[in-house]
Amino acid sequence: MAQLARPVRRIEYDIDHGATRVPAFLAKNPNGRVPLLELDDGTSIAESGAILWYLAEDTPLIPADRLERARVLQWMFFEQYSHEPYIAVVRHWIKHHLLDAPRQAQLAERRAKGYAALDVMEIHLQSHAFFVGDRYSVADIALYAYTHVAHEGDFDLAPYPSIRRWLHRVRAQTGHIPIDG
Amino acid sequence: MAQLARPVRRIEYDIDHGATRVPAFLAKNPNGRVPLLELDDGTSIAESGAILWYLAEDTPLIPADRLERARVLQWMFFEQYSHEPYIAVVRHWIKHHLLDAPRQAQLAERRAKGYAALDVMEIHLQSHAFFVGDRYSVADIALYAYTHVAHEGDFDLAPYPSIRRWLHRVRAQTGHIPIDG
Repeated sequence: MAQLARPVRRIEYDIDHGATRVPAFLAKNPNGRVPLLELDDGTSIAESGAILWYLAEDTPLIPADRLERARVLQWMFFEQYSHEPYIAVVRHWIKHHLLDAPRQAQLAERRAKGYAALDVMEIHLQSHAFFVGDRYSVADIALYAYTHVAHEGDFDLAPYPSIRRWLHRVRAQTGHIPIDG
Repeated sequence: MAQLARPVRRIEYDIDHGATRVPAFLAKNPNGRVPLLELDDGTSIAESGAILWYLAEDTPLIPADRLERARVLQWMFFEQYSHEPYIAVVRHWIKHHLLDAPRQAQLAERRAKGYAALDVMEIHLQSHAFFVGDRYSVADIALYAYTHVAHEGDFDLAPYPSIRRWLHRVRAQTGHIPIDG
């Protein structure tokens, strides 16, 4: 939103204590999850990928070409299906000390699948500066989010030089602000 | 594709025996997954949601309104993140007799999350004929796919009358063909 020069007010919800599963929140998103974008007129949009698409349509962050738009969505769905459930979830468990026995039992498989996602990204980035059309797009924003904090889930990016160079390129974009900035 | 009157040739891959993890397939989709759309010029598009979007842009299956487009994507990301990993995966394990001990240990949690996804759909469909804009769209196609075979994963749709009525509406669309037809 900073890169689109759109003002935003951030509201924090304590998801580990059910703050998004109360009636007032469920009225805005029946799926009970953050992020949730609320527009000035009260309209709510859920799902990070849908929010990115809504904000970025008709801007340089989404390509004009039909095939390239599909490629952007391809990487955004990859992020939600093959990346976030492993890299973001493992990071959440470790960073917030939530590794109980059932989660510990899933850790090895989730870590392996997280590295598999990083492998797919590394192969692509060996020959591409960005994920789609050699330009920065919402696909890069979607994948940067949890990749740049993967180390907080004990994922080691040392064997992924192309990913590390791409992280630098994303950080170098005009208007980039740190996620906690 | 039948509803868009586009011809398609279907190629089956035996995913339980690694047929999408061989070099020839990985060259088309480094993530090693089906579905994969191959165009006549050899271009490949992965991720079911991206394939649907590519095929349906500029057709009545994707709304013209920006907010409604975001809503379509919202439900498509919901399907990939909150529905498919539970309803489709459990069905796959049960239908193909793949319930080994590690999967059995995950079954109760996956089933609960599958029913949670059905709950979200039921609430929405109690007051909507379709998922977005009261018209059939790719959001309905994406959610129909595994919902209409949820019973093969021992999900009971009896307590979901609005979902069952919506399944009938989807089946009644012009050009609808059964998934194995």
